[in-house]
Amino acid sequence: MGDVWGRNIKLSIFGESHGKAIGVVIDGLPSGFEIDMDQVNFEMSRRVPGKNQLSTARKESDSVDIVSGFFEGKTTGTALCGIIYNQDMRSKDYSKIKNIIRPSHADYNAFVKYNGFQDYRGGGHFSGRITAPIVFAGAIFKQILSKKGIDIFGRVKSISNVKDKEISYVDLPEKKLFEEILQREIPALGELNGRQMKEAIIEAKSNGDSVGGVVEVFSTGIPTGYGDPFFDSIESSISHLAFSVPAVKGIEFGAGFEITKKNGSEVNDCYYLDDNKIKTRTNNNGGIVGGISTGMPLVFRVAIKPTPSIYKDQETVNIEEMKNTTFKVEGRHDPCVVIRALPVIESVAAIALADYIL
Amino acid sequence: MGDVWGRNIKLSIFGESHGKAIGVVIDGLPSGFEIDMDQVNFEMSRRVPGKNQLSTARKESDSVDIVSGFFEGKTTGTALCGIIYNQDMRSKDYSKIKNIIRPSHADYNAFVKYNGFQDYRGGGHFSGRITAPIVFAGAIFKQILSKKGIDIFGRVKSISNVKDKEISYVDLPEKKLFEEILQREIPALGELNGRQMKEAIIEAKSNGDSVGGVVEVFSTGIPTGYGDPFFDSIESSISHLAFSVPAVKGIEFGAGFEITKKNGSEVNDCYYLDDNKIKTRTNNNGGIVGGISTGMPLVFRVAIKPTPSIYKDQETVNIEEMKNTTFKVEGRHDPCVVIRALPVIESVAAIALADYIL
Amino acid sequence: MGDVWGRNIKLSIFGESHGKAIGVVIDGLPSGFEIDMDQVNFEMSRRVPGKNQLSTARKESDSVDIVSGFFEGKTTGTALCGIIYNQDMRSKDYSKIKNIIRPSHADYNAFVKYNGFQDYRGGGHFSGRITAPIVFAGAIFKQILSKKGIDIFGRVKSISNVKDKEISYVDLPEKKLFEEILQREIPALGELNGRQMKEAIIEAKSNGDSVGGVVEVFSTGIPTGYGDPFFDSIESSISHLAFSVPAVKGIEFGAGFEITKKNGSEVNDCYYLDDNKIKTRTNNNGGIVGGISTGMPLVFRVAIKPTPSIYKDQETVNIEEMKNTTFKVEGRHDPCVVIRALPVIESVAAIALADYIL
Amino acid sequence: MGDVWGRNIKLSIFGESHGKAIGVVIDGLPSGFEIDMDQVNFEMSRRVPGKNQLSTARKESDSVDIVSGFFEGKTTGTALCGIIYNQDMRSKDYSKIKNIIRPSHADYNAFVKYNGFQDYRGGGHFSGRITAPIVFAGAIFKQILSKKGIDIFGRVKSISNVKDKEISYVDLPEKKLFEEILQREIPALGELNGRQMKEAIIEAKSNGDSVGGVVEVFSTGIPTGYGDPFFDSIESSISHLAFSVPAVKGIEFGAGFEITKKNGSEVNDCYYLDDNKIKTRTNNNGGIVGGISTGMPLVFRVAIKPTPSIYKDQETVNIEEMKNTTFKVEGRHDPCVVIRALPVIESVAAIALADYIL
Repeated sequence: MGDVWGRNIKLSIFGESHGKAIGVVIDGLPSGFEIDMDQVNFEMSRRVPGKNQLSTARKESDSVDIVSGFFEGKTTGTALCGIIYNQDMRSKDYSKIKNIIRPSHADYNAFVKYNGFQDYRGGGHFSGRITAPIVFAGAIFKQILSKKGIDIFGRVKSISNVKDKEISYVDLPEKKLFEEILQREIPALGELNGRQMKEAIIEAKSNGDSVGGVVEVFSTGIPTGYGDPFFDSIESSISHLAFSVPAVKGIEFGAGFEITKKNGSEVNDCYYLDDNKIKTRTNNNGGIVGGISTGMPLVFRVAIKPTPSIYKDQETVNIEEMKNTTFKVEGRHDPCVVIRALPVIESVAAIALADYIL
Repeated sequence: MGDVWGRNIKLSIFGESHGKAIGVVIDGLPSGFEIDMDQVNFEMSRRVPGKNQLSTARKESDSVDIVSGFFEGKTTGTALCGIIYNQDMRSKDYSKIKNIIRPSHADYNAFVKYNGFQDYRGGGHFSGRITAPIVFAGAIFKQILSKKGIDIFGRVKSISNVKDKEISYVDLPEKKLFEEILQREIPALGELNGRQMKEAIIEAKSNGDSVGGVVEVFSTGIPTGYGDPFFDSIESSISHLAFSVPAVKGIEFGAGFEITKKNGSEVNDCYYLDDNKIKTRTNNNGGIVGGISTGMPLVFRVAIKPTPSIYKDQETVNIEEMKNTTFKVEGRHDPCVVIRALPVIESVAAIALADYIL
Repeated sequence: MGDVWGRNIKLSIFGESHGKAIGVVIDGLPSGFEIDMDQVNFEMSRRVPGKNQLSTARKESDSVDIVSGFFEGKTTGTALCGIIYNQDMRSKDYSKIKNIIRPSHADYNAFVKYNGFQDYRGGGHFSGRITAPIVFAGAIFKQILSKKGIDIFGRVKSISNVKDKEISYVDLPEKKLFEEILQREIPALGELNGRQMKEAIIEAKSNGDSVGGVVEVFSTGIPTGYGDPFFDSIESSISHLAFSVPAVKGIEFGAGFEITKKNGSEVNDCYYLDDNKIKTRTNNNGGIVGGISTGMPLVFRVAIKPTPSIYKDQETVNIEEMKNTTFKVEGRHDPCVVIRALPVIESVAAIALADYIL
Repeated sequence: MGDVWGRNIKLSIFGESHGKAIGVVIDGLPSGFEIDMDQVNFEMSRRVPGKNQLSTARKESDSVDIVSGFFEGKTTGTALCGIIYNQDMRSKDYSKIKNIIRPSHADYNAFVKYNGFQDYRGGGHFSGRITAPIVFAGAIFKQILSKKGIDIFGRVKSISNVKDKEISYVDLPEKKLFEEILQREIPALGELNGRQMKEAIIEAKSNGDSVGGVVEVFSTGIPTGYGDPFFDSIESSISHLAFSVPAVKGIEFGAGFEITKKNGSEVNDCYYLDDNKIKTRTNNNGGIVGGISTGMPLVFRVAIKPTPSIYKDQETVNIEEMKNTTFKVEGRHDPCVVIRALPVIESVAAIALADYIL
């Protein structure tokens, strides 16, 4: 249970890494919306692995077949189902490790939860691959929101110990800049910072190891007054979805955890009139107070843990034989999923916001 | 909308800080559960202000009147409604600031959202006072979970820049210790650390300022296999509820944001057999992998921002006159809500877990 | 579970017949709506028993105390909780029959479901009394819908074998007429029919017996295009709520079950232009086709069974002793609940429609 | 919106009559259940048209492709998606009537609701064809319930004015008999009654007309105590789903509308001990009292209107030209959908019951 999300929109996700297909049913779309499929495909391509040495060599074309709710290039207003057929699966890579529970993967607890009947191949329903339908849904909602003046974009904030440069959360860089950095291997704002991040990934990879990082997502143009104090604060919706994404271990809005180290007088966002519009001098609350949008940019960060699949011997257990053993990953794996996670987390923001605004 | 939460249980929260009453309807309770009202009252007292110089002088007895779903000392299995009648309200304190939007409070965006019809007195439905019904619900669920061997407790992890001492997330201190520290003014594990935290609060208060902090909550005894990969991971449920609590700006599980700075080989939680039971050597995932409980202790931290109400002149706007102005808080306010927030966040954990387990 | 209903609005109902209070939390109300409390009280009075010889002698003032979400005479937009404190309860009437399961009441299956912990006094949460909060919620939604041009009214269609007169479902009698018949003991359109219905009730009562009947509810002014094909047809929402009302055994829309005896050519609702507005010549579909409003009047009927509480010896079982026994009702009971059920079913329509339209 | 249903299970339905595919995502299935695909295919075949002169000549193979949640012949416990690719569509049949709104179809109100962007071909998302995924889901849940001793079956109760024979609702005929009558052209219990029903259909067909009817569905083996008083009575869940099925205009449980014509003393279901088991002498409540199962057989009937598509000139409107016109159906249509509706309504019962019991 739990494969359905939403209040005003409903997302029903399905599929396993090595099954026939993965996909999503999206209910609650407006009728008559013309989907820009090129844009959808571009977003899908951002998540796809195999593009360069920074990600797994598994090729996933991730081409989406829309089988319902879409007529003559436009949404009908009834449930839209997008399906991605799985390809280039190497299920044999996994069969021999069926009973070896991989550290920091969900093999063990999934085994217990599903009584051993889960599709264990490639992580099954727990695979990062299942985020592809989320990116598909996100790509559609991004377009719909964009038509309403709401833009969503993001950057890699850090990889391992390498941080991207600091920016103001009151006056964000232009959207265009965020589109430009998507052409880089690592979409960081600082070019030098990006190169250092790449080095950190390459170094970990060369050691058979992995690294994590932080992604930062922004949204501009959200009108004041969306969200709820209880229990559906904008933070609640975004975090609910974000923690569905594999490897996410934390989320913070605005100044986040750092705000706890400051005095109220240092971090309160004071109001002032700017050309008869109410704004705040700072944006430590990240565009949300009391669960409701303030009209300032939405800002949040998500912590992505290092890929658990590493090419090193690790202690673990064979659950069939109930014996201690060691395990070393084979097959193709990302040394770092942060870059591929960025469009997923942007999609999470798009879906969460669309649920309030549509 | 949004005042209702839950899947297997349903919480419906209602009330305003200065209205007649606040309360909650809890649906989905088992029948025949004997509620220990002393324990409920103890939990309520932990959130109540006015106990010492560290919190606001407003007296709230927070005595709960259970008007339904409770018969001869036991739950009936139908909706239980608990009501707390408001007392010791000083609404006049607020009337003169009706149009002055307080920085980092939800006055402005609530005004926009509700077209000015919200009950503005004392923050209305946005008041921290509305967390009292959450503590009430949490107190009941804690008891029910405890009967199933699942315990929930916590501590103040930091106030401003003062941290509590580090502990192992694999072998937590005993529950008894966590019960003992509740007798202290600040429930930190280190006595010295607690005293320094108190000093930080007193200092801020003496400056008319405020401080924030981090609370850390644990749960032991959760069986392996609860939770869902999509979209209802345990992290999703806990964070959804936690971000409904006023002043929360971040949440992290296990090693949280710090995990992003480490290599996979450093933070993977390796499995081993301990007396034929599967455990992990470390617990950097905080008891959850792939959204599902691993059987290790649940560990999470929540960032609480400094109280926005400070006794200093702050820039703001009069929204009736649409003019810039300044504002200085009057009335009674907490210099720090972290200590009072702890039972609320523990309750969030209890409610979220009960939703899976009942 | 199940005490919460709704998508765009949420109703959380609570209370037992002989507990402290019954009530409802309504989430999703618009802000700034001025509730006409006289109108609310009038609707409540329609459901209240004890007015004449046609209903039980139990006096229920059913005065609602609104404790939240209501400020300076208007809705705030956050959850509104209305509480009705129970009065004139004679719990002793029930204690001696605790273990005697009353025929066609829910005593037996409730006992099994709640393991004997349900509040058995007066039917507890199964009592018709719990419909009072539904009428309260319905009274508010009726007012809100009325402001949007949507009116809801009804009549007693039949009592036992006595039918009210037939009317056209295309051109309904004026709303004013439906208001007028509320002044009668039995709100039927035909005065003679009403008198005959009364006689049927009096006759049953004099025999210590009871009768049932059918109520018919209408709504005019619903714009074309509300509702959903799957799974939230307007019929689905109305029937979902209607079957929560005790004693309801059937529901039908438009021509209902009679339509099954006709040919398509006899009952198809043909379209035509009336002053450039699209109407249908007949309204056998009762204003809904494919789950969606057509713009024609909504028409539905609900079957109310005879009150199970009768003053006659009936065969039953003592579940403590597990022995066959006989049972004869004592205390005060309605010989017919159809008249009191009418405002409840009207409320069901108001709540269901509001869920689409607000 | 509305294409998702359920509490403990979730059904997400999608597709249009002439789109690429229709299907359903089922969330909440237990893991490790071995689906009998022959049985699924048999159930699908019962709904499929084109088998004889009593239904439309359109051929639909309705073969379901399960693309997720199903591994090595068993359910995994995560979302199972079943897809049916559309075949033998003759979309040209529909294009010329795009702007002619068909009487008693949802063309007009769907046009208004979706601003003209709905897939109008063959009724699109409003087509009876969309019930195929419901039968697929129902077939799976029937199997799961059957393993728990709960059986679901039904019969055609009437076609036009021809009724099937009466039976006892206390002691139903054996399940085997209900399986046998599925081999007949019309699954009525009385063979003669069935032949007369067939004649009524043939007669209507020969006149280019259509007929409706009533289906009756039963379930045995439901344990006492499932369901809720508010708002999720078993009747609520079943009726909610049943009214999603095109052409349904009424539903009644047990004695249904007839109960309103009787005295309480005639229809109360009196309890007695039968071999230490609590049963009722009659079953006028159809196995449900107070929304909760009594342990007696579940009995309900659903009214199916005559197919609106008839080969006769009918008055209607061209909504593009906004002119009165006449319309006569072309293409292939059923003279009666009652027989094909029976497995759909049985599926509705299976799905609704599974939502309580799984």
